[in-house]
Amino acid sequence: MTYCVAIKIDAGICYASDSRTNAGVDNISTYSKMFTFSEPNNRQITVLSAGNLATTQAVIGQIKRDVKRSAKENVLTMDSLEEIAEYVGQINIAQQERHSGGNVNYAATFIVGGQIIGQKHQVFLVYSAGNYITTSKDTPYLQIGESKYGKPILDRIIASDTTMETAARCALVSMDSTMRSNLTVGPPIEVLMYERDSLSDSSRFRFEEDSDHLRQIHSSWDAKLKEAFNSMPGIDWEELRYPSADAG
Amino acid sequence: MTYCVAIKIDAGICYASDSRTNAGVDNISTYSKMFTFSEPNNRQITVLSAGNLATTQAVIGQIKRDVKRSAKENVLTMDSLEEIAEYVGQINIAQQERHSGGNVNYAATFIVGGQIIGQKHQVFLVYSAGNYITTSKDTPYLQIGESKYGKPILDRIIASDTTMETAARCALVSMDSTMRSNLTVGPPIEVLMYERDSLSDSSRFRFEEDSDHLRQIHSSWDAKLKEAFNSMPGIDWEELRYPSADAG
Repeated sequence: MTYCVAIKIDAGICYASDSRTNAGVDNISTYSKMFTFSEPNNRQITVLSAGNLATTQAVIGQIKRDVKRSAKENVLTMDSLEEIAEYVGQINIAQQERHSGGNVNYAATFIVGGQIIGQKHQVFLVYSAGNYITTSKDTPYLQIGESKYGKPILDRIIASDTTMETAARCALVSMDSTMRSNLTVGPPIEVLMYERDSLSDSSRFRFEEDSDHLRQIHSSWDAKLKEAFNSMPGIDWEELRYPSADAG
Repeated sequence: MTYCVAIKIDAGICYASDSRTNAGVDNISTYSKMFTFSEPNNRQITVLSAGNLATTQAVIGQIKRDVKRSAKENVLTMDSLEEIAEYVGQINIAQQERHSGGNVNYAATFIVGGQIIGQKHQVFLVYSAGNYITTSKDTPYLQIGESKYGKPILDRIIASDTTMETAARCALVSMDSTMRSNLTVGPPIEVLMYERDSLSDSSRFRFEEDSDHLRQIHSSWDAKLKEAFNSMPGIDWEELRYPSADAG
């Protein structure tokens, strides 16, 4: 399993991804799921991947090869982020179609985000069918992989005017909630903060398994949540039990 | 979809269930998913249901019929909670086997809990295959239906010595998180607090759609969570960005 999230705010895009892959619980490996394709001062593209590892490696491999051999269509030459999303979707379909059988799920999903000079920054989620969606004002983030555990905090905190620091902290809390409940999501955790109009990917961070920062987020969020629950007003069950006493 | 949870603590068992059923998003109805079978001073049994509505109604119907016609094996005569779980599992399989086709999922799952005089209070989760599991000291609760959104708070708060009031409040917060993220889980919400050795089901509560209590829990938990997030210590990204500055 995997958990990746991309948060689009006015200030830019914050990405976070875990690095655990598993083929059964006894076959666990570490692979980065965050890939960047940049031409400084022209464009910065980030791709996050989830799903079948053979498929995601084949798709990322093809994207890289197309850049290397300066294919007519490659992520460094295409005119818009949406074209790039379409292109990743097509490669995704093509790679899945090459394999079948063995009762294996070959599906993969991708998040494709970034900015091309003179255009707005954007994020797309590319499904295994090759189609894609983007963010909106009401839904400023996109997730792939195990998305449920980490969703509530994003819904509560993220808005378009959220700062990059808050978005990154929220992404890490969202990742922490996911790791706590799903063992197949795990460190190293990668975070990339793309600042709007910077057209560079200099702000990339990596938190290892033994990272003090990850541990601090984990224990501080745990303590804060318990505190929050314990400070909630109580429920007057007795009044609920005998509501007729008042009415009598 | 459905969300039901049963929390087993030293003080007893707290159950909570939603009442929304849907067959497609334009066919939504309200059905209670909480059923009690009691013989005062002898036993109190509570059953929660999730899954295909026709299957769950057929299973509950059969349990009731077996009691009514004083079948040799019925929930009011069986010797242990485990036997009752086994019995519900067998009915569950039998009812599912009567139907097939139409690309419909006929599966159903049940939570069966309670106490028989002279025995410990227990909770079982009965799967669609008829097999079942019970709680443990480390996992003092069982969920059926849409379980992911409501799990993190249970993991953080519930322990064997949790009080009944705290367990009930935690069940409602867990329900609130689920309703916030999954539209097919909704009120009325039912809560039953079974107090150990009481052998009666007098403490049953129902929260309607317009319940002030539900609204209060919703807004107070929302505010508390945001407060918790905002009061977390910040992350020193600059230090992370240039770790070599210190080492230099």
